[in-house]
Amino acid sequence: MCRQCNYTIHAAQHHLGWDNAIAPVQTVAPGSTIRFACMEASGGQLNLSSTADDIATLDFGRINPVNGPIHVDGAEPGDALKITLVDFAPQAQDGQGWGWTANIPGFGLLADQFPDPALTLWRYDAATLAPALWGSHGRVGLKPFAGTIGVALAEPGTHSIVPPRRTGGNLDIRDLSRGAELYLPVEVAGALFSVGDTHAAQGDGEVCGTAIESPMDVTLTLDLVKDANLAMPRFTTPGPVTPHLDAKGYEVTTGIGPDLMTGARQAVEQMVDLLCARHGMPAVEAYMLVSTCGDLRISEIVDMPNWVVSFYFPRSVFE
Amino acid sequence: MCRQCNYTIHAAQHHLGWDNAIAPVQTVAPGSTIRFACMEASGGQLNLSSTADDIATLDFGRINPVNGPIHVDGAEPGDALKITLVDFAPQAQDGQGWGWTANIPGFGLLADQFPDPALTLWRYDAATLAPALWGSHGRVGLKPFAGTIGVALAEPGTHSIVPPRRTGGNLDIRDLSRGAELYLPVEVAGALFSVGDTHAAQGDGEVCGTAIESPMDVTLTLDLVKDANLAMPRFTTPGPVTPHLDAKGYEVTTGIGPDLMTGARQAVEQMVDLLCARHGMPAVEAYMLVSTCGDLRISEIVDMPNWVVSFYFPRSVFE
Repeated sequence: MCRQCNYTIHAAQHHLGWDNAIAPVQTVAPGSTIRFACMEASGGQLNLSSTADDIATLDFGRINPVNGPIHVDGAEPGDALKITLVDFAPQAQDGQGWGWTANIPGFGLLADQFPDPALTLWRYDAATLAPALWGSHGRVGLKPFAGTIGVALAEPGTHSIVPPRRTGGNLDIRDLSRGAELYLPVEVAGALFSVGDTHAAQGDGEVCGTAIESPMDVTLTLDLVKDANLAMPRFTTPGPVTPHLDAKGYEVTTGIGPDLMTGARQAVEQMVDLLCARHGMPAVEAYMLVSTCGDLRISEIVDMPNWVVSFYFPRSVFE
Repeated sequence: MCRQCNYTIHAAQHHLGWDNAIAPVQTVAPGSTIRFACMEASGGQLNLSSTADDIATLDFGRINPVNGPIHVDGAEPGDALKITLVDFAPQAQDGQGWGWTANIPGFGLLADQFPDPALTLWRYDAATLAPALWGSHGRVGLKPFAGTIGVALAEPGTHSIVPPRRTGGNLDIRDLSRGAELYLPVEVAGALFSVGDTHAAQGDGEVCGTAIESPMDVTLTLDLVKDANLAMPRFTTPGPVTPHLDAKGYEVTTGIGPDLMTGARQAVEQMVDLLCARHGMPAVEAYMLVSTCGDLRISEIVDMPNWVVSFYFPRSVFE
């Protein structure tokens, strides 16, 4: 129930690829506020009874459903769709929020080093959003957002839901959380907006390929900015972006060299090694953990020929 | 004057490249605390009377002097040098801290787009470190650190001071500020530590190639961790890393595609355009400004084949 919403889009009103030929599930006026009851990214294939075996047999044809599309009256190519993110409410199960993080073979920054499926299940307080417990003494700060949020491409046909594009989509930008305002370039009449892939927490990079994947109700407002002629998505945040993580500072590893991707891999590898050595955890567990709360930053990108990529792990998880 | 210091290394005790044949200026025991009186990165070529013409005629043979080297007793290859960053005290001139930010032709993330030399001069309160004024109404939060901090390479000969390496050097990591603990891999007996290139403020990326380049006294403690066998530098921060910037949130632009470098360039280009459109400033001024306070982050690096690089500009500068 959402008193302020003009419309509710249910879980069944979803699609699995971007295609401007998909009929809108709703047509709305600019200024409308809409609630979307989003499934988690497996589309109902995983739950609190799942195991790593279920990761090995995931049906990728059902991955990353997004609710929509919404036709916004008056939206035309060249406009920007302004999305104000009003609220993210995790859907409780047995009174608790829940989520999953997986290592999916072939997917993730270190896919070559982690070939086997693995799964971490999470329970958390959906009302307070207190940090989620990890193992016996870890705590991961939560900050819900939608990993996939976008509009239809002008190019005809069905486009995979996996990569993000200038029209948005699977951006996995951790800071598109409550209060943020996102601007997306409109490529087709009506914009054809969809949202899903809700995450309870994710670090910048989403390095293992998944976050705390968690079903949520997303409430947002859609507006138009005529003739904005945006090249790429942009957004504003209403305040600091890491209050859920940074109170105790960070452990930071680095990768240094002429290729940013190699540097990112080095930095994450070393953080996995550091956590394994310090806390005695299996490497794949560390890899999944850091994906939910570790941040990839580019520390310098100008001191030719070597760049520095740093990976920031919040000390609040274990201190 | 530093009551807690065992040694002071003066500005004249500097070198201009990494070379393990350079004689140490001081030999110290582990646990020693040392004050380094560091020049700014031009090595005295620029001051508050300088203009863009002085950037065009900079002598690159004098760029980025570092104070040292310091021989640490007992340091051996395979150890880590632990550097505890105790304090950064800007050197006042006429009672004020000062610094410069330049667009140096051929240097910087968008060097192809900004071929002409340009210079921004800064004055700030060296005692309070209150935000530095930019133009008539901008304010850039300050957080002093040393851009170049490292130890000698095992490989003989003189190695350029410009690129960072696994032994550190010109890391330009903004968060190596007061209270941070940095660990560097030792490659030669005695470690041969040097520091310089002090910055009053810099964003992650240092996108125009320079920060607020400012002379400072750096106080730090050197310790050894035997047989640490670090692959790359790592560090810890004592608390949040952006309290000087993030109170009012961020404006964020993005670059999306299969190459992280291209994505970083797109994100910075769009931020320059946004600031020019909104505040009516020349593009090169915006480019230098964002280098002092805008942060490059990797939002996602797993959604094949497109990655998202985001550039975070603190709204506190103009709001």
